[in-house]
Amino acid sequence: MSGVEEVDERVSVNFLKHKMAKFAKERDWDHFHTPRNLLLALVGEVGEVSEIFQWKGEVPKGLPDWKEEERIHLGEELSDVLLYLVRLADMCGIDLGKAALRKLQLNAIKYKASNKYTQHP
Amino acid sequence: MSGVEEVDERVSVNFLKHKMAKFAKERDWDHFHTPRNLLLALVGEVGEVSEIFQWKGEVPKGLPDWKEEERIHLGEELSDVLLYLVRLADMCGIDLGKAALRKLQLNAIKYKASNKYTQHP
Amino acid sequence: MSGVEEVDERVSVNFLKHKMAKFAKERDWDHFHTPRNLLLALVGEVGEVSEIFQWKGEVPKGLPDWKEEERIHLGEELSDVLLYLVRLADMCGIDLGKAALRKLQLNAIKYKASNKYTQHP
Amino acid sequence: MSGVEEVDERVSVNFLKHKMAKFAKERDWDHFHTPRNLLLALVGEVGEVSEIFQWKGEVPKGLPDWKEEERIHLGEELSDVLLYLVRLADMCGIDLGKAALRKLQLNAIKYKASNKYTQHP
Repeated sequence: MSGVEEVDERVSVNFLKHKMAKFAKERDWDHFHTPRNLLLALVGEVGEVSEIFQWKGEVPKGLPDWKEEERIHLGEELSDVLLYLVRLADMCGIDLGKAALRKLQLNAIKYKASNKYTQHP
Repeated sequence: MSGVEEVDERVSVNFLKHKMAKFAKERDWDHFHTPRNLLLALVGEVGEVSEIFQWKGEVPKGLPDWKEEERIHLGEELSDVLLYLVRLADMCGIDLGKAALRKLQLNAIKYKASNKYTQHP
Repeated sequence: MSGVEEVDERVSVNFLKHKMAKFAKERDWDHFHTPRNLLLALVGEVGEVSEIFQWKGEVPKGLPDWKEEERIHLGEELSDVLLYLVRLADMCGIDLGKAALRKLQLNAIKYKASNKYTQHP
Repeated sequence: MSGVEEVDERVSVNFLKHKMAKFAKERDWDHFHTPRNLLLALVGEVGEVSEIFQWKGEVPKGLPDWKEEERIHLGEELSDVLLYLVRLADMCGIDLGKAALRKLQLNAIKYKASNKYTQHP
């Protein structure tokens, strides 16, 4: 049980950044990985996630009626978005892990927990 | 120095998932966070990243000529993409950390390091 | 009545292309309007359309419960997508009107009207 | 020569709207064509356009070095964006042709031709 937790904790933004950097270097892909190339690749992957959801109408949380293969496919496309996002941040010289921590703090200040939200801001 | 590394390693996909879940629960936002709502929010944030890059032409790695405020703004928008992505995966019942590890392995099998790549696949 | 139809028919892809070309020329924006700059601008506008729909859950056809100002806002964002799309095609040297006619014909061949569709292809 | 112009002028937003409506009706696809389904389909098609441009770096106007098949492929994907955009507007009860005309007028007021633009607004 704690083993599973440890695996999960290992998948940090920083870990993925190093994996992607090594992967690109070994294949001599660094020269392809300019910021705007990676951004367009990210948009392409978001498009593939959208294609999975496009004709389904509203979908309940947990995707109860989805086949296992659809679920695996979605996991792969969401991963592609994550991997290109991490790589894009790295190629922009931005520490995405730190930026995300900071954004969580900014959000906590901007959207007070004590407020009543009748709409999502 | 090692303290910085520790901070970075702490920002795992799993950590962000729990942060987002707590944040949404405290504000009673869970009912807004359906898979397709979150997907459209993700698309909106990718759009905001695109707006930052849209009139710049090609941009070199590390964004050498960008002002500090532009860099911070980009970090915030990339973080928004990350946070909605993590939340979307969670609301779909997908373990994004594990899925990303698995995708890295699949990519390593699909794209051999020994190949010569004249184009990015 | 026929006046309204004539106004509608006047808004051709070609008409919008010429309008956008004139607009850009008069403001000396041509040098900004490279294919990838325009593509990222298009992605940004699609993001703004998504933001309008993002927290609404499923929305019925005709948007019966939307306020007039929301409807106008949506019309503006959809128009921005259209205008950048037309401009992008023009800057790529692609005749979008002709390409769309051709795509309609290809779709009619690919998706027979006589088929029964239990899923959207 | 004037024949070509006439073909081009025929491809109005309104013409495409009617074509798409007939196409969907004949295949019994109307029930799939809800606003958010069409929006996600549009995002998917924008993703496919992005995939065409993603590893190319900056691309000059007119795409001088592109193969004819790449150009045709791009025309098809841009058409898919256009067709879903027109259909989305129709299913939202928005007259996209009129909205685009109005947006052109608003833009002309907002961005004076007499201004000097050192940046694209």
